[in-house]
Amino acid sequence: MPSWRRMLPSLPVLQWGRAYNREALVSDSVAALIVTIMLIPQSLAYAMLAGLPPEVGLYASVAPLLLYAVFGTSRVLAVGPVAVVSLMTAAAIGQHAPAGTPEYWAVAITLAFLSGLLLLSMGLLRLGFLANFLSHPVISGFISASGILIAASQLKTLMGVSAEGHNFLDLSLSLMSQLGQVHVLTLAIGAVTVAFLFWVRSGLKPLLQRLGMKPRAADVAAKTGPVAAIAVTTLLTWALDWQVQGVKIVGAVPQGLPPFTLPLWDLGLWQALLVPALLISVVGFVESVSVGQTLAAKRRQRIEPDQELVALGSSNLSAALTGGFPVTGGFARSVVNFDAGAQTPAAGVFTAAGITLASMFLTPVLYYLPQATLAATIVVAVLSLVDFSILRKTWNYAKSDFSAVVATLVATLTVGVETGLILGVGVSLALYLYRTSRPHMAEVGLVVGSEHFRNVQRHAVAVSPRVLSLRVDESLYFANSRALEDRINSTVASRHGLVHVILQCSAINDIDASALESLEAIDLRLRGAGVRLHLSEVKGPVMDRLRKTEFLNGLSGQVFLSHYQAIAELAPELIA
Amino acid sequence: MPSWRRMLPSLPVLQWGRAYNREALVSDSVAALIVTIMLIPQSLAYAMLAGLPPEVGLYASVAPLLLYAVFGTSRVLAVGPVAVVSLMTAAAIGQHAPAGTPEYWAVAITLAFLSGLLLLSMGLLRLGFLANFLSHPVISGFISASGILIAASQLKTLMGVSAEGHNFLDLSLSLMSQLGQVHVLTLAIGAVTVAFLFWVRSGLKPLLQRLGMKPRAADVAAKTGPVAAIAVTTLLTWALDWQVQGVKIVGAVPQGLPPFTLPLWDLGLWQALLVPALLISVVGFVESVSVGQTLAAKRRQRIEPDQELVALGSSNLSAALTGGFPVTGGFARSVVNFDAGAQTPAAGVFTAAGITLASMFLTPVLYYLPQATLAATIVVAVLSLVDFSILRKTWNYAKSDFSAVVATLVATLTVGVETGLILGVGVSLALYLYRTSRPHMAEVGLVVGSEHFRNVQRHAVAVSPRVLSLRVDESLYFANSRALEDRINSTVASRHGLVHVILQCSAINDIDASALESLEAIDLRLRGAGVRLHLSEVKGPVMDRLRKTEFLNGLSGQVFLSHYQAIAELAPELIA
Repeated sequence: MPSWRRMLPSLPVLQWGRAYNREALVSDSVAALIVTIMLIPQSLAYAMLAGLPPEVGLYASVAPLLLYAVFGTSRVLAVGPVAVVSLMTAAAIGQHAPAGTPEYWAVAITLAFLSGLLLLSMGLLRLGFLANFLSHPVISGFISASGILIAASQLKTLMGVSAEGHNFLDLSLSLMSQLGQVHVLTLAIGAVTVAFLFWVRSGLKPLLQRLGMKPRAADVAAKTGPVAAIAVTTLLTWALDWQVQGVKIVGAVPQGLPPFTLPLWDLGLWQALLVPALLISVVGFVESVSVGQTLAAKRRQRIEPDQELVALGSSNLSAALTGGFPVTGGFARSVVNFDAGAQTPAAGVFTAAGITLASMFLTPVLYYLPQATLAATIVVAVLSLVDFSILRKTWNYAKSDFSAVVATLVATLTVGVETGLILGVGVSLALYLYRTSRPHMAEVGLVVGSEHFRNVQRHAVAVSPRVLSLRVDESLYFANSRALEDRINSTVASRHGLVHVILQCSAINDIDASALESLEAIDLRLRGAGVRLHLSEVKGPVMDRLRKTEFLNGLSGQVFLSHYQAIAELAPELIA
Repeated sequence: MPSWRRMLPSLPVLQWGRAYNREALVSDSVAALIVTIMLIPQSLAYAMLAGLPPEVGLYASVAPLLLYAVFGTSRVLAVGPVAVVSLMTAAAIGQHAPAGTPEYWAVAITLAFLSGLLLLSMGLLRLGFLANFLSHPVISGFISASGILIAASQLKTLMGVSAEGHNFLDLSLSLMSQLGQVHVLTLAIGAVTVAFLFWVRSGLKPLLQRLGMKPRAADVAAKTGPVAAIAVTTLLTWALDWQVQGVKIVGAVPQGLPPFTLPLWDLGLWQALLVPALLISVVGFVESVSVGQTLAAKRRQRIEPDQELVALGSSNLSAALTGGFPVTGGFARSVVNFDAGAQTPAAGVFTAAGITLASMFLTPVLYYLPQATLAATIVVAVLSLVDFSILRKTWNYAKSDFSAVVATLVATLTVGVETGLILGVGVSLALYLYRTSRPHMAEVGLVVGSEHFRNVQRHAVAVSPRVLSLRVDESLYFANSRALEDRINSTVASRHGLVHVILQCSAINDIDASALESLEAIDLRLRGAGVRLHLSEVKGPVMDRLRKTEFLNGLSGQVFLSHYQAIAELAPELIA
């Protein structure tokens, strides 16, 4: 394949489309119906979370599904508005326009466009590996903190008051000051809905199973809980005129197809949105890929991360052109799609058709829907994201990971989502660099009766006073080459009768220019003290590089294929 | 030693001071005399380079030497104004006050104070290792680029015109536009002085040796060239009234002791100067430590980097309190001090006394000194810093180091010193992280007749179709754990009849929480495919961490002390 061909996006639709048959059609249609029912309340709710009119949530659930079906490599991923990305969207736009205004919506469209461009470019440039720098603990901490933030942001709607803030502190203070104004009927609707939805999650499924339903079907049926809650509270509001008593309702939602929209062509705005768009893109990509991989593995399929970037990029661009906001592959809806038996991305196309019908005909029905009901569905959905077990796990396993999680959690809650993410990545990279800058080094000796060498402090091994065998447990690079110099200097100074130093290089995966200078300096200094420097078990790629320099010619000692051979020649008494 | 004691700065003066004797006194006095003669023109010139009045250079060469003598661990390091730090000072202050004003001087004093505080804090917190992140290639590139910048900044004085700019482009353009106004007599003085100083460097020393002088004495004598140039051009200007013809002279320099000064207590200014002060501190520290280590090694002495931070911090604080500007250990003067036979930091004390005498009595003599002469001494001094061999070296050895050098060079010349340094560090860290995120992995096989395993693609080794031996040449952490998953997934998918995967962990120095999750996922997936995952040669510290988790209990395979034992059990046919 010529290299320019590899730059072009591939079209997975050509693979699954050719083999499409009646059986897949039936499975996909059933799955699409269930996902559509689930998506309608979710789309409305996440639009509200992002500070946008409810219909925008529907718009964002049509075109992105179609584009993903063409370019995506997961068979079951369902793309659309998701909780964390909606929260990040609200945080990013809030600084540029007041929520609820047409400008706010236009900035949201621009953010989706920019995010689409970034994802698409990363995909075409094969930069998917960048997402690996968001470590698992950091993303866990971030998602838990986001879940708390989102739940807190919905309390105002549940209590029928107004509150502001993009972090937990501001939100809490703002809510506290409003406690006197709580609207009791709204709070009652919200609280009952929350309780009902929790019961649906924990109590309905076992009940349905006891009534004879199969576990998977019971699972899918339980996912329709939010729709039931919406239907009941809407009907009650309509029947009892709760809106007259001050319950905020969704109100008039425009009917019709998603509109054609364009981003704002404002360079200053683009610059200001660049970092938020990048963070939204990376978080969306990571969430999407991890869902996609988990589900693909269950059916022994594979997804291609770089192609996923192309698919998500196209989806976001299409969202921007059809009045939507940033989207990504959602966890809950993809699992439902999978469990409901979706075979191909055609299920997504059918879901898009369902949402289109909803946005054309269903919106008048939503007039009396209480906003508190939507807030309740959000709270119940996001509280399942909150999982602090990562704190205990990382505390036990690796304090550096623990620090990164804590930094992410605390900064996300107290400052905001962007600071939290950036700090989390920064702390984890800084701690990684710190660790590699102070490498573990072990003096090793021969495990008697074998050709194997281990740390003299941990194992009973044979050593010679004339030979120092040092294993450096890190690649040598600028940040740690001085540590090696210091270690060898101090060891040699305290060890009389030493004639040979052998560096066992089995853990040295790279030697950069700074480290090469350090090795030269070490060799020179040892030579001055009458000691020779040898290397053993130098890896192929490292050896290739060293051969290009004068270092090996000038080296006072030799290079041995294995440490055992080095000891056999330099301290044969250990072997005989 | 209790831990709080380790926080206190130590006093190396108590060691060398107690053993001080007449022999050391004589050596130190001689060295001090020679260094004083060399320092006077240097101090004046570097103050001019920093945009400060000439006497400030003398002030900065008194108190810092005394403080270094008390706290410093190098026996011969000479502290004071140096070229690169003076250039960085000019770049940092230029944004806050116009050169030549009292405000400019006050900002310089504040910069020295801040830099002193930073160095002292880094020393007390033992953060000396941070300097290791400035790699040798980056510092080489930075110093070469600084040398060019400094030389270019002196051209205006050599040509008797005025020009502005803190990068090479601005300076060159500014100079071009002034070419019509070149002052011919000034240019002549400057050009002859430059030629003379170059001859002193290359021609005088051999001449003196031919005349019977010993090489070291000839070397030291050649260092007095700038003093001779100053004496001759000052006398000529006085005798021939060149200042009347438009040659700019140093003019009236205040006589007297260094004044007592305080930094500006302006929080906004401190914030603005924080990054420049940090960069100046780190560059000064790296330069100073590398000179100190080189000279200490020649006499088999050692220096303590963290204590050096304390010493340089105190020196800069004292500079701020006595009308000076940022200082550090200088290369040329320390070498002269060493070659002239200095035994202890008392030589620095005597040098400080010499400079004090000069600032009290010698300044009237400098009235007729042409500024072009000082510019010439700067140009000749800094051109020896310019050394592009690092480009060829790194190009041949490691393209990543080469990229970091080029980024540093280009950004320093085109944007400025701060951007250059930050970009250099950023590029080298980013490339390091990039390399570690795509680890080298090799399938290994048994070197027949030994217990040693090497890459199947590079060596003739024995392998079994039932066993995959994979050596990962990198610590496993969040940025590369997915690469390991991908490699194992794709290898296992293409290898039928595979029953065991053994990861040879000899190069794995750490496994973080993300990588642990990946290993669990790999094990789970392999188990599903009927393949067992084993580990061999897991290092002690890594094993300690893994033992704290459930991973080893859940592992489908075993952990072997050596890879040979693993093969002996899982593929005994290779051994028999």
